[in-house]
Parts: sequence; C-alpha cells; structure tokens
Amino acid sequence: MNKPKNLMPNFFVMNPIGYIRKTGDKVIIEILSDYQDALLGLEGFSHIIVFSWFHVNDTAEKRKTLRVHPRGNRTNPLTGVFATRSPVRPNPIAISTCKILSIKKNKIQIDRIDSFDNTPVIDIKPLLHSEEPGHEFRVPDWIKKK
Amino acid sequence: MNKPKNLMPNFFVMNPIGYIRKTGDKVIIEILSDYQDALLGLEGFSHIIVFSWFHVNDTAEKRKTLRVHPRGNRTNPLTGVFATRSPVRPNPIAISTCKILSIKKNKIQIDRIDSFDNTPVIDIKPLLHSEEPGHEFRVPDWIKKK
Repeated sequence: MNKPKNLMPNFFVMNPIGYIRKTGDKVIIEILSDYQDALLGLEGFSHIIVFSWFHVNDTAEKRKTLRVHPRGNRTNPLTGVFATRSPVRPNPIAISTCKILSIKKNKIQIDRIDSFDNTPVIDIKPLLHSEEPGHEFRVPDWIKKK
Repeated sequence: MNKPKNLMPNFFVMNPIGYIRKTGDKVIIEILSDYQDALLGLEGFSHIIVFSWFHVNDTAEKRKTLRVHPRGNRTNPLTGVFATRSPVRPNPIAISTCKILSIKKNKIQIDRIDSFDNTPVIDIKPLLHSEEPGHEFRVPDWIKKK
C-alpha cells in the first residue's frame, strides 16, 4: 500500500501518566505529579475510560501474534486480534470503563479494574454517554450544551 | 511518588497498523498488509472502536498542555485534559466508535470518523456492548457464551 505522501513517523512514543495501585479491594489510579493539573474538573463525571498498557504482554513475539483463540479457550474459533480484546496485539493498549469513587490530589479511587497492580496508565478520558442506562451516570453541565 | 519496584520503562512505542483514507463521503481504514491477518472474524461484529493518533497534535508543547477550555470555547470552564476529549493531551490517543459497512481484504469501510485523511490508526477493538440500544448491533456467538 502507499504510505501517506506527507512525512509520517512510523512509530509514536507514549509516556506513563500514572500507575494502577491495588491494595486489598481498594483500587487507586496514582497520577504522576507532573500530570496532576490535568485532573481539574474530572470530579464532574461519574465514570472514566482508563487507557493502560498491557506491559506484561509487551514483547516482540506477542506483538507479532495476529490470531488467537479468544479468552484462551481453544474451542473458540481462531480469531484475528483486532476482533478480540486479547492483551496480545500489535500495540498492547487496554481500555476499561471505571466508576470514580473519589479524587484526592493525584489519586483517583475507582470501583474496579481488570489489570495487574503497577500497570502503567497512559490516558484518562471522561465517559460521555452511558453505556448501561440505569447505572448511576453523571456529566458536567458543559457537556450538555449544544 | 514511588515508582514501581520492578523495572518499568518510562516510555512505550507504538507502530501504526493502518491509516484513515477519506475520499468524498467514503471512509476507509486501510490496514497495513503486515497486519491483515488480525482482521479474521471482524465481520461478525457490527461496530468497532478505532484507536488513532492525533498526529497533528503530537508536538512537545501540546503534550505539555494540561488544561484547556473544552471544545475551544472560552465560555466553557478551564478543565484538565483528562476531563475532556481534547486532542491536546500528554499521549494524543483518539477513540471513535464506528459502524462497519464492509470489509474487503485489508480495507474496512466505516460509516464516518471525526479524523483527518491519513490519520494513523494504532488499534482496532470490537464493540462488545451496545452503547446506544436501538441501533443495529451484532456480535459473534463466541461473545455470548458465558
């Protein structure tokens, strides 16, 4: 295929903006102090989308694996990784929708996340529309303006 | 804050897996041929989440900008970028939920995407739950198994 005519890098670099910390049942996203200012106004939202890096799957071999049996179950059909949520994929990005329990300084306490302790977090975005109408859902007024 | 005790890199590298191509009203995700095998089974889903890179905002200055007036409207309150969908953010990742119109070889035609022509795509994940009940929504049988 043709590459874009403009100059386009063939890689992009991301830096962790924080880490998942798990202590018993408590789950905290600890934001690095350099990025704490980026949390202003987050308390107006009930839910966030947490972007993290499947760091334990960030190996050259796993990043080359293009087909898997979903959920590690060989009775599931061999499936391209872009048709699964497998942690094994070319760019091992994870997303999780989480409920905010509290925000104190650089620490966001969330209800739960399916990630290991110390997983690097690369971005946080607010959830703008309820995916499951019926659960407690809240956005700030500026979102509602047309 | 304490860094994790295990060795943890302070950056992660991503490679484009394809590019957005816009021709008139037609929107195609052109997957690089190296990654075409990762599309197997994607036709079983009605919708995908497209992860792309806000490449025009990938500058050192914009990546250091932690607060913005949402939607570029100065009447909106100054807000931390993690509480907005602003393209200006430490790691300029974008996500869009798109409807699949067709998949032919390495080309996925989608309904629409709010991205520039030639935007690099870094990941594709299937949409597992309908965010807007009522729109046409479909997943393969292996998803429905408990």
